This record gives sequence, structure tokens and C-alpha cells, in this order.
Amino acid sequence: MHTMAVIGTGLIGTSVALAATGRGVSVYLSDRNRAAARTAAALGAGRAEDPPEPVDLAVLAVPPSRIAEVLIAAQARGLARAYTDVASVKAGPERAVLARAPEPSRYVGGHPLAGRERSGPLAARAELFRGRPWALTPHRLTSRAALDRGLELAELCGAAPVVMRGREHDEVVALTSHVPHLLASVMAARLRDGPAGVPLLAGQGLRDVTRIAAGDPRLWSDILRSNAAAMAGVVKELRADLARVAAALDVLAEEDVPAEEDEFAEDSGAGHDQGVRTLEELLSRGVAGLAGLPRPGVGPPAAETGLRILVPDRPGELARLLGAVAALGIAVDDVAVEAAEESGLRVRVPVPTADAERIGAKLGADGWDGWERARAESVPAG
Amino acid sequence: MHTMAVIGTGLIGTSVALAATGRGVSVYLSDRNRAAARTAAALGAGRAEDPPEPVDLAVLAVPPSRIAEVLIAAQARGLARAYTDVASVKAGPERAVLARAPEPSRYVGGHPLAGRERSGPLAARAELFRGRPWALTPHRLTSRAALDRGLELAELCGAAPVVMRGREHDEVVALTSHVPHLLASVMAARLRDGPAGVPLLAGQGLRDVTRIAAGDPRLWSDILRSNAAAMAGVVKELRADLARVAAALDVLAEEDVPAEEDEFAEDSGAGHDQGVRTLEELLSRGVAGLAGLPRPGVGPPAAETGLRILVPDRPGELARLLGAVAALGIAVDDVAVEAAEESGLRVRVPVPTADAERIGAKLGADGWDGWERARAESVPAG
Repeated sequence: MHTMAVIGTGLIGTSVALAATGRGVSVYLSDRNRAAARTAAALGAGRAEDPPEPVDLAVLAVPPSRIAEVLIAAQARGLARAYTDVASVKAGPERAVLARAPEPSRYVGGHPLAGRERSGPLAARAELFRGRPWALTPHRLTSRAALDRGLELAELCGAAPVVMRGREHDEVVALTSHVPHLLASVMAARLRDGPAGVPLLAGQGLRDVTRIAAGDPRLWSDILRSNAAAMAGVVKELRADLARVAAALDVLAEEDVPAEEDEFAEDSGAGHDQGVRTLEELLSRGVAGLAGLPRPGVGPPAAETGLRILVPDRPGELARLLGAVAALGIAVDDVAVEAAEESGLRVRVPVPTADAERIGAKLGADGWDGWERARAESVPAG
Repeated sequence: MHTMAVIGTGLIGTSVALAATGRGVSVYLSDRNRAAARTAAALGAGRAEDPPEPVDLAVLAVPPSRIAEVLIAAQARGLARAYTDVASVKAGPERAVLARAPEPSRYVGGHPLAGRERSGPLAARAELFRGRPWALTPHRLTSRAALDRGLELAELCGAAPVVMRGREHDEVVALTSHVPHLLASVMAARLRDGPAGVPLLAGQGLRDVTRIAAGDPRLWSDILRSNAAAMAGVVKELRADLARVAAALDVLAEEDVPAEEDEFAEDSGAGHDQGVRTLEELLSRGVAGLAGLPRPGVGPPAAETGLRILVPDRPGELARLLGAVAALGIAVDDVAVEAAEESGLRVRVPVPTADAERIGAKLGADGWDGWERARAESVPAG
């Protein structure tokens, strides 16, 4: 790929342009807002002018509802040999392209899964897409050449391309991006009318849950409405879950108030027990749902061996072991106390099997004599 | 404070004990699970034995539903001169203490706003509470001496004490902690039954929204049911918001499908417009809600001056300015392009007023000649 046009020089468009320019591609920038295109150019993202001849690829970095019209206009003037976009909704724009674009075969849908809360060209970064997924959604008429250009773009930006159907993409992102955004906004909106103490007791958990609600409301309402059908199904299921929780909370709240003398008694009736079960079951389903997500930066599980160490029952001895383990570059987060015996605490230190011999010897030399290698075992990543 | 008892050596109890030991307090540890108390002791958090005489303060680090019974048992054997706890619900335990404890005046409720997804003594850190809020909730009989011990504990742990009523505390944390936890769990639970592509397209936004759902379901169901009354009100409001959004999504989804030839037309009927307005209004309320939260590490706004710089319209010039600004230790995130004129881009660089002269001179020496100081102005933190 030698030449590229980027239409729309906001955060994503300018970041794509910076990445492409950095890899030696000649990039031509345009935006309805001319100052935005000139700002991107002044950042080194390319030239704010029309290309002298058709480019290899045009990247449409406009909101979902504008993709079809921008593509039609670009194809009418022969801007590029292939076209893609970066919008987070794919099925609706694809339908419109198939119905109305002069050359639908030259278009492949695209969606890099990366972003920031800030928008506009000044927030752009060439590394924005590094290591992130980049969905490509060829439709039934997409040419091999257009799909290849999309793949090339993702790789040029350092992203990991994922090819899937547009409709499937929209169902997945409804669950992984659009409904989470909606929940974050609903939660954040409630804070506005909350009691005066809210800013005093706001912690990291609340900040994480609501962080993405800071996104631009106009852009996000365009995204959400363009994926309304897929979102509606998920929201319906969420509302059913919340209705069950609300009923459980009502029962628990009622039982809490009058029973002052025995409100902490073990046995408080069937409604109470059912309410607690509803909460526990939902919380456990949440833990199970998280277990299916990839942990960033974690590869497939390596074979692991548990070193078993007997730690004398003296103050600070366990802290000393954790220090020695950390000094060997082993994560202390997975160390576990397996049993407390008369002779001391039996502690398990998981280490990569390939290094077990060496690490065991080092700990032994360090005074941790009682070490004994547990049976080799492979530990799942979850 | 010279002596302390910690009952319950999980994450929070052991972290309190580590902080206190580090400040020279003699700490006595206990736990229903004897191995947990010995593990905490081996970490250097104190001694896993009963104190020889009454201690200055006993810290009850047990789930909300167990506080009253544990306090009653401790007071019956004269464990301490003052008592506090670290549970995230305050009104229910307080009612039970007032009704049943032998010496309610010696008890002050407490709640440090800190935590980790991991639990147990091995996850404890002496610095867990540093800079975090620590709520103290004296009730109508709490003595001055007991409140002072609670304040001393918060300060000893490096936290910022916040004194409020128990009921007020519970209403605030329903909004800042318990309902967010519930939403994170509801969202995470939906992932389990989602389409196969979910792990492929899961990004940082989803991870942030759902992170706290990884907490221990048994502990969290205890917390949530102990604050059921305050949560029920917030959940009711959330459900009303979601019902409005669901209705809007249904309208938008229906309009999207049949209108293939003009689905991206500007004017798609009153229902459509109303649906878009509902989404935009909710998203905007979310942004407004976030504006009320303190930004961590951000103090009161300093007086700020805008340096105005004319950046020539050549590729990379703006990047060069941002580099020069960053090299002077100024955050580039607040730099803005105010206008694109024929002579170039007019860029505003906000700097602390006290440094404006010096920074302006440096940028001038660096070749950024066109700088001109904007009128001094104070910028609000939000």
C-alpha cells in the first residue's frame, strides 16, 4: 500500500493516518471541518489535500450513520481502488452500501477496537491500535482485493485482524461495548442527583464502572441507535435480571427493618433465603462470565510446578519468603497457604516447570530448606 | 494507641494490622479460620494470640451480618477499651449494636474505601488505605474517646477520615459502590451466554465496567443484602431509566430494518427523533454525573494562563510544538486548536500562571515566536 485517503480526521482517523504515515504511506486527509484536517496535517498525519490520482485505500472515519453517503460520494469521484471504514456498527451501513453504492465489491467493513475518552485529532496516537483486535466484515460482494487491503491496514497499524460477518460483529459488540457503555452512562447519570457525600466516598470501583460514560454523547448516540436491534435483545435480558434482583432486595429490605432483636439470626424465613440465593447466584454468574474473557498480556498457560515450602511460624517469615520469591521474578499473587501444621505453614509457590529446578535450588541456598517439588501439573489460564 | 486486636484476618483486617504494626502498635490477631490468623502473623501483621490485657482498640474485620454478634462476644470478655469495624454497611449493624451490645458507647462504625479483587491475608498490603477515604459513623451513644480511636486508626493507615451518619453513609455507598457492583455483575453474567466472538472483541472498556464483578460472591451477597433498603431505591431509578432506553431502542430498531432505501435519511419520523433524543439525553446526563466526581491526584484548580501560539501550516509542526511543550513538563492533553487561519493554526497552550512568563520565554527561544499571552483566567477543575 503506497497511498491512502482518510476521510474524517477525528481521534480514530488521525490515529490511522499517523500510523500509515509512520510506515511510509502517502496519506491525504479531509474533514468537513477544515481546521480538523489541517490540525491532523500539522501533527504529521499527512497532507490536507485531495490526492492527484486514485489511492490504494480510502478509510472512512465518520459516524456509522454517515458511512453510506460518504462512500457513495467518494466512489462517484473515483477516490480509491478499495474502501473501508472504522465504525463500530457494521450491518446497517453494509445494507445501505449493498443497496446504493456504485461499486460495493470494493468495500470491506472495518472496526478497530480502540479508543480514548478524548476525541478530535489532538488526541490521536499512532500506537492507538497496537495489539488491539481489528474486526473486518466482508459482505457477499466484497472482492478479495478489498479484503486484502483491509487486512493490510490492520497489520500496518499493529492490530490483530479478526474476520467475521457484519451481523455477528454487531451482536458481539452490543454485548462487549454498546450495552456496557449504556450501563456506565445510566450509572453515572444517577450520581448527579445523589446525596452530598457521593464525591467523598467515590472510589476506584465506581470510576472504573463509569469511565467510558465520558465519551462524546453525540457520537455515542449515533453508534447506539445504529445498533439498536442487537442492543435491544441484550437490554431486555439485563432488565429481566434486574427485575429479579429488585424483587430480592425488596424482600431483604423489608425483613431488615422490624426484626431488630434478631435481624442477624441465621434463620429468617423462606423469602429471605430465596433473596440471598438470588443475589449469590447472580454474583456467581458474573464471576463465571469474567472467566471467559482473555486476560491482557497473558498467553496460553505454561506448564507449572508447585514448589512446596514449610514456613516457620515466626512473625515476618512468610513476608521474607514472598520477598525472596519476588526477587526471583515470580509473581507472588499465586502463592497460597495450603495448610497450617504444628511445624509451620505449608506454602505452595507455583513456578514455570522449566525453571523449577533452578528456583528450588536458589530458595534452598537462601535458607528455605524444606522445599519439595509438587507433581508437575498444567494450570488453566482462567 | 499502643495495642490493637484485629478480629478477622482477611484482606482488610490483615492490611490494617500490617499498617498498625508498621507504626509500632502491638497487634493481636484472631480468625475463625486459625490458618488465616497464623498466615497473617507469618506475614508480620502481629501475633496470632489473645492479648494479655484489654487493648486500646479492637477492629472487627468480619462481614456486615456478623458485626453485632462478634462485638457482643468481644465486649462480654472485655477485649478492648474501644471498638470499630471495617464493613461497608453501617446502619443495620449499628441498630443491632444499640439494641444488644453491653457497651454501645465504646463502638464507632468504620469503613475504609479500599479493596482488591483478591481476598485473604496473602493479598493484604500495609499501603492499601493510603490516600483513600475512611468513613467513620458515630451513633447517638458513641463516646468521644471511641470516635477519637477511630480517627487515629484512619490516620495511622494513611487514610482520609470522613465523619457522617450511618444511614447517610449507606445511601452514599449504595450509589458509589453497591449498585455499581451489581451492574458490573449483571453485565458480566450476560457474557457467559454471549456469541462465540465475545472473547475476540472484548476491549478495555468492557474490562473496566466489569472488573469489580470478580469479587467474592459470598462476601458480596452479605454486603448487598445488608444494604438492601438503600440499594432498592437506586435500582428502582435505574430500572426506570433502562425502561425508557429499551423503548427508544425498540423504536429505532424497528425503523432501521424496512427503510433500506432511505435508512440514513435525515428525517425518519417523530418516533425516531424522540428515540435519538432519549439516548442523547441519557448519555449527556452520564457525562454530567461524572463531572461531579473528584479526579484522583487533582487538587483545586490553579490559576491558569493560555499561551497563544501561531503554528505554521507545515506537516509535523504541531507535533514539534507538542514535543516542546511536553519537554517543559506541561500536560499536552489540554492543548487546543482555536482557529485555522491563513497564516497557520492558532493554538492555545494552558500553563500555570506563575510559570507563564518563563515558559513563554523558553518557547520563544525555541523558535515559537508568535506567542502571545491570553488574558489570565482561572479554569474550573471539572
